[in-house]
Parts: sequence; structure tokens; C-alpha cells
Amino acid sequence: MMLLSVLQANASVLDADANLRIIDDAARRASQAGAGLLLTPELFPVGYAPLRLHAELDPASLPGIKERLADIARRHRIGLVYSLPAPAEASVQSTHDDVAEPTPAEDRWNISATLVDAHGAEVLNYAKVHLFGGEEHKAFVAAQEPPAVVDFNGIRTSMLICYDVEFPEAVRAAASRGAELLLVPTALSAGFENVPQVLIRARALESQLNVAYANHCGHEDIYNFLGGSVVAGPDGSLLAAAGEGPALLFAEVGTETVNSARNEVPYLRERRPELYKEWEG
Amino acid sequence: MMLLSVLQANASVLDADANLRIIDDAARRASQAGAGLLLTPELFPVGYAPLRLHAELDPASLPGIKERLADIARRHRIGLVYSLPAPAEASVQSTHDDVAEPTPAEDRWNISATLVDAHGAEVLNYAKVHLFGGEEHKAFVAAQEPPAVVDFNGIRTSMLICYDVEFPEAVRAAASRGAELLLVPTALSAGFENVPQVLIRARALESQLNVAYANHCGHEDIYNFLGGSVVAGPDGSLLAAAGEGPALLFAEVGTETVNSARNEVPYLRERRPELYKEWEG
Repeated sequence: MMLLSVLQANASVLDADANLRIIDDAARRASQAGAGLLLTPELFPVGYAPLRLHAELDPASLPGIKERLADIARRHRIGLVYSLPAPAEASVQSTHDDVAEPTPAEDRWNISATLVDAHGAEVLNYAKVHLFGGEEHKAFVAAQEPPAVVDFNGIRTSMLICYDVEFPEAVRAAASRGAELLLVPTALSAGFENVPQVLIRARALESQLNVAYANHCGHEDIYNFLGGSVVAGPDGSLLAAAGEGPALLFAEVGTETVNSARNEVPYLRERRPELYKEWEG
Repeated sequence: MMLLSVLQANASVLDADANLRIIDDAARRASQAGAGLLLTPELFPVGYAPLRLHAELDPASLPGIKERLADIARRHRIGLVYSLPAPAEASVQSTHDDVAEPTPAEDRWNISATLVDAHGAEVLNYAKVHLFGGEEHKAFVAAQEPPAVVDFNGIRTSMLICYDVEFPEAVRAAASRGAELLLVPTALSAGFENVPQVLIRARALESQLNVAYANHCGHEDIYNFLGGSVVAGPDGSLLAAAGEGPALLFAEVGTETVNSARNEVPYLRERRPELYKEWEG
């Protein structure tokens, strides 16, 4: 079992100093409470503002921000998931070139998530496969790699980002690679309560893993965020849920509840992937 | 728009006369209320009792039961979905021969669902792909065909049965074939509230269609059923929900809410099936 903490907060667009202070403070409190890991929202260190990030963020500032985030994890001896723009692999092509501006190769960015351990070492990376909305498609390119899985504090852990998790296929990809805990930085607008309250619980239940979903709150750029961060258990129950304002959630996540759910109803064993591939056409 | 009715009731095992009286009465009330279609639970005309059906049901009785069900639809001028054992296609092989007894070819049965129109004509058939639990695997074989879609009263309509709908891939197969309304006869035990309350709402939301889920209530054979039948709309909202006792639910279902949900968040267009196939390995 691991105590997991989830940060819900309001970021300041393009003010990494202010945003890293919020993460630092949350990491300190989470660590003092005994948490082994702190999950933070999508693009939180730079603020969620795709078009402004695309126009104004100096990519040269990113390595320094990543080093400061690793240092937060080290100083507070806690695992940390953060999300930032990251250079896209050269081979990655957006499937949405119809909506995206053509972008020179040296200027192609994914939305990424990184898990660093309590020593500040990167142990897992993921790049967002399902971009949401016109702004993201203009500012970023979609990745193509499935979510990888790593052992973290004894729990097989994977990551998706925001819109990804609304697609059951993406969570299946993590579960079929052994994930027991899925960490999801997000930036979900107000009005989409059914995403955390229905879809996230369903993802946890249908693939029988823990899902933590960390959202922004308040206004950033042109966006008004829902808050409503949640942690769902492998039986679809809510282990923790935030309101609309800033919050630091805590939930115990582990492998026993995963195993017990998978033994009770063997969804993953009773899938029929060979048929699904045929049916997909 | 069509007014849909959903029957939740307790069946008597191997007493088709009693069960058809319940369906007949529900069809009369539903038709009088203006409903265009009545959905009834899994195997309701014969009762949900896989091993007893396998041992005691005379297959020669089934054509007569089907004719009486068609007559109910005709007399009350209402579409009707019923579920019965049906002879398995010769080519269908169970994927669970490890748990199923070897069954002679002339004695292989699917769990099927049939939609008849208000003239009593069969317009859609489906056979269950995901069998649930040891009893079903012993008494039936799993089918392999994806859910087909038919235009019914102006709404593209498809069917799944019970455990099928807990797999998002099965609903995707219906949605990718154009389904706007998914009709699901079920037999869900008490204790699984999260299936109607979380999974069914998620299926409706993630594939943006209407889902109606008709369950048994009370005891049949060795089973204690949840009740809790629901109709969910394409935004994941509950349009109707039953308690634990007998009920006849009504909900307006149509294509406008489907189109509006699909325009707001284009889940089906923004899926990446080519990646999912690769990821499935």
C-alpha cells in the first residue's frame, strides 16, 4: 500500500516560479503526511494555455524547470508526477494535420508527463496521444506510443494525460501492460463533471486498477477549470474527491484491491481482443 | 424521438406462461402510454437459470414461445426486445472449452436477443459474445459476431446482452456501426450497483448513444437480482432508473441528443483505432 496525494490548484500562466512554489508546498505537506507520491495537473508548472505556451514559452527554460521539479522531489523525499511540453520524437506525426498549422520539425512539441522518484530520478515518461480541441492541435502534436508501466513503490504504475483517459482503449493499453495504478494529470473545464464522476470511475472499474486524476481549478488563460479531482479504486468506488477549489487529496492505493477485483470479475482475462480487432474493421 | 419502455420484473423459471403474461401486461401498458418499444430482461420468457435451462428446457418449445412473443408485439402494436436461448451457428466455437463441458453440435445454444417490430416481424438478432460465470459457460456457447445495427422508428438501434456491455469494446463495435440506441437485456445480481450506475452511464457517454438496460428483480433459481434497470443518455445522464422491485420505466430517446453530444466532444472521430490495434499486440 502507498499513500498517494493529488494536487488540485490554480496555476499562473508562464509563471513557473509561482507554480513551482505551489508544487513545492504541496510536496512538503504530502511528504509530511506520509505520501509516497504527489500527482500534479497537466502542464501545471507553466500553466494550461496551449496557444500562449506555443507563442511565448522559451523551450530553453524547460530543462531548468525539470531540474527544479526533480529537486522538489529530492528535498521532500517524495515521488512526483509533473506535466510539461516536451520535444516530439522526430518520427511522430500528428494525425490532425487538417486542423494543425504545419509546424517545422524543430518546433514540434508533445504534452508530456514525467514520474520522478524520491531521489529526483526520472523513472517513467509518457506523451499525450489524444489531443483535445483546436488550441491543443495548433500548439502540440499527438504522440503514438502506448503508456508504459514501471514498478513504483511496489505498484505497477502508468500514466495518461487528460483526454486520453476518456478513451477506454488507452486505459486498456495500460492495464494489458500490467498497470495497477494509473496517474492522470488533466486540465478539464467546468461543465464536464461526468468525466471524473462517471468516466474515471468506469475506467477504474472496467480495467480494475486505481486511477488518480489531478485537475486545475479556477481560471487560467481563456479556460475555467472544473476542479473535481478524484481517485477511484479498482471496484469503481471513489477513494477521494475534491470540490471546485484548491485541494490536496490523499488516498491509499495498492495491489490487494486490484487483485481482489480481478479475481471477483475477470474482465481482463475475459476480454476477446482477437474479435475486437476483427470488429474494428 | 421515441418513447422507450423498459421492463424490470421477476421471472418464474421454466414457466413461460407466467412470464409471457408479465410481458403481455407490460406491452399493453407501455403501448397505452405511447411507447414505441418495450425492452425486457435476459432470458426472461424462460427465467434466468442457465443450468436448469440446459437440463430441462425443451428446445422444441422455443418456436412457440417466439410466436407468442411476436403476437404480443402485434396485438399491442409495439416493438419488443426479448431474449431466449437460440441454436448456435455451426461455426461458432466457445473460447472457453476449458470450463465448458464438450457439447454435441445439435445441443449448442447461444443466449440471444431479438427485436421484433410492431407487426411482430423480426428485424434484428444478436447472440451474446461474453458469457458470464461458470453456469453460463456450462450451459451456453459464446458467439463471435459483432452487434448489428438496424433502423427502428428512425433511430439506429443495436443490442448487446448483459456482461457484453461491461466491455467498452463491445459498445464501440455498435457505435462504429452507427448505433444511436443500444438495447441491453440483462440478468445482474445484487451487489453490482456500479454496473448500471457507473459502467452503463460511461458506455453511453464515451460512445455517445442511448443505452437501455433491463434487469430482473427478486430471486430466480439460485440468483438474487439487483433490479436497478436504467436508461442513460448520450451525455452520460440517467434518463430513468428503477429501484429493486418490479418497474416499468419510460424514457424519451432520439437522435438529436446523440448528434449534439457527438458535435460537442467528437469521441468517435478522435479515436485512434489504428494505434489501438497495434497496442493490443
